Amino acid sequence: MSFSTPPTIGVFDSGFGGLTVLRALLRRMPQARYVFLGDTARLPYGSKSRRTIARYAAESAQFLVNQQGAEYLVIACNTASALALDAIQEAVSVPVLGVIEPGAAAAHAASKNGDVLVMATDATVRSHAYAAACQKRGLRALEKACPLLVPLVEEGWLPLQEAIPQQVEVTEQVIRIYLQQLREEAAAAGLTPDTLVLGCTHYPLLRTMIEKAVSPGVRVIDSAESAAETAAHQLAARLEGTTSSGEAELRCFATDSIEKFERLGSRFLGRPVGTVELVDLGG
Amino acid sequence: MSFSTPPTIGVFDSGFGGLTVLRALLRRMPQARYVFLGDTARLPYGSKSRRTIARYAAESAQFLVNQQGAEYLVIACNTASALALDAIQEAVSVPVLGVIEPGAAAAHAASKNGDVLVMATDATVRSHAYAAACQKRGLRALEKACPLLVPLVEEGWLPLQEAIPQQVEVTEQVIRIYLQQLREEAAAAGLTPDTLVLGCTHYPLLRTMIEKAVSPGVRVIDSAESAAETAAHQLAARLEGTTSSGEAELRCFATDSIEKFERLGSRFLGRPVGTVELVDLGG
Repeated sequence: MSFSTPPTIGVFDSGFGGLTVLRALLRRMPQARYVFLGDTARLPYGSKSRRTIARYAAESAQFLVNQQGAEYLVIACNTASALALDAIQEAVSVPVLGVIEPGAAAAHAASKNGDVLVMATDATVRSHAYAAACQKRGLRALEKACPLLVPLVEEGWLPLQEAIPQQVEVTEQVIRIYLQQLREEAAAAGLTPDTLVLGCTHYPLLRTMIEKAVSPGVRVIDSAESAAETAAHQLAARLEGTTSSGEAELRCFATDSIEKFERLGSRFLGRPVGTVELVDLGG
Repeated sequence: MSFSTPPTIGVFDSGFGGLTVLRALLRRMPQARYVFLGDTARLPYGSKSRRTIARYAAESAQFLVNQQGAEYLVIACNTASALALDAIQEAVSVPVLGVIEPGAAAAHAASKNGDVLVMATDATVRSHAYAAACQKRGLRALEKACPLLVPLVEEGWLPLQEAIPQQVEVTEQVIRIYLQQLREEAAAAGLTPDTLVLGCTHYPLLRTMIEKAVSPGVRVIDSAESAAETAAHQLAARLEGTTSSGEAELRCFATDSIEKFERLGSRFLGRPVGTVELVDLGG
């Protein structure tokens, strides 16, 4: 048995929602090293053109690979995965994994009848990236934009320790309303979905609440978990023989707005994010 | 009595929320001509630096004055009013009015005991522009960021004709929760507020709901209305002798995302926005 250096995994998001993907990666590969970059100065990517998003994402990927030594990249951002995966793959020479393909693959594995629902942000839905990735696998997907869920998560109206019951009830009610709309739209489209994909990196914090609210028999797929599973599979050989020294090594970078990142980040990561380092990637 | 050409009033916002200010202007000065610009390609201003916001706002103001002939400018955007009013005034040679000073002035006129609450977006609260404008007038102001209100308005979870009762109840409950938090924070700070300022151009659509939910005796100030009142006062001499030819002349411009503007704009304006023209102000 040979001991080798653990690999450095770069994780990129336009904000800090992608910390839920990092959390899933840490759980599966505690022996790896991690570098996370949130391009917070230039968010939201969702309202920008494909060309601009591709440039931002490529610059961010190059920072993680060329300056931080990442040997493998996870694009923990649905918008960048949908619109800039090719550009990122061209910009760096290491393997690059997005969140959409693993999510669609997991939906394919889970669904018995091929009818799938996708909850996501407005920008992700407008890209129709999940619908395309599902269609490629013979699934029929119905996508729904749920713009209230990200601000509810960021407000912390969640069943956390310090939760206020009325706030949690609002989030439960919003989830029920969106799911009811999805059921009606699915029925109108002649679909009988048995699988629901959480297509936004903020939604893992709502997973338990959503699982309680879906129709019986509907399986909930968390694309953050699916991406981490795929990454662990692809890195299995590279990880063999490396040892974990307790808590994984992690460095977090942001291009701006470190305050919000540090304040909310630990809720997404499930452990303190520590000091977030500011980095300037230019305009 | 002399007949003269009606003045052209330029109205600027980073998005289309400022259409509520335009609506208030139209009601007070139906005989004027209007040019509205939403800098939708570069929103949200709230997450950007003061220098960047100043440049964007100055370019937008110059478009309205130099290319569209605006003789008077209303900055119907709290972030730009808070961070870029000086830069706009330097960039153009016509009078410029923001929404914050009129809002604070109206609070000063309304409050008997000088204790004032302000509901606004996170960016406006972080600028503390309302607190400063209130303090200048001897008022004590408590500001609260209410990040869920803008997405609730944009989702249309409002008591409109086509409203779904469960959705309206969510918005009512969110308003009650924010107001309860404000009451607790005010009590902790030793304030007994008798006035509440709506410090976001989206909030006029929630005014009736907020008025129902505030404590008895609290007066609600809508800074969009206050700004329109100030503008009408300042333009009174210029408007004298001009005649209204029925529906006011209005042209709307946006730098991107015309779809959302056209879809949601009429709800904010209270009448159809018509065709929104795309304009390129550069990066």
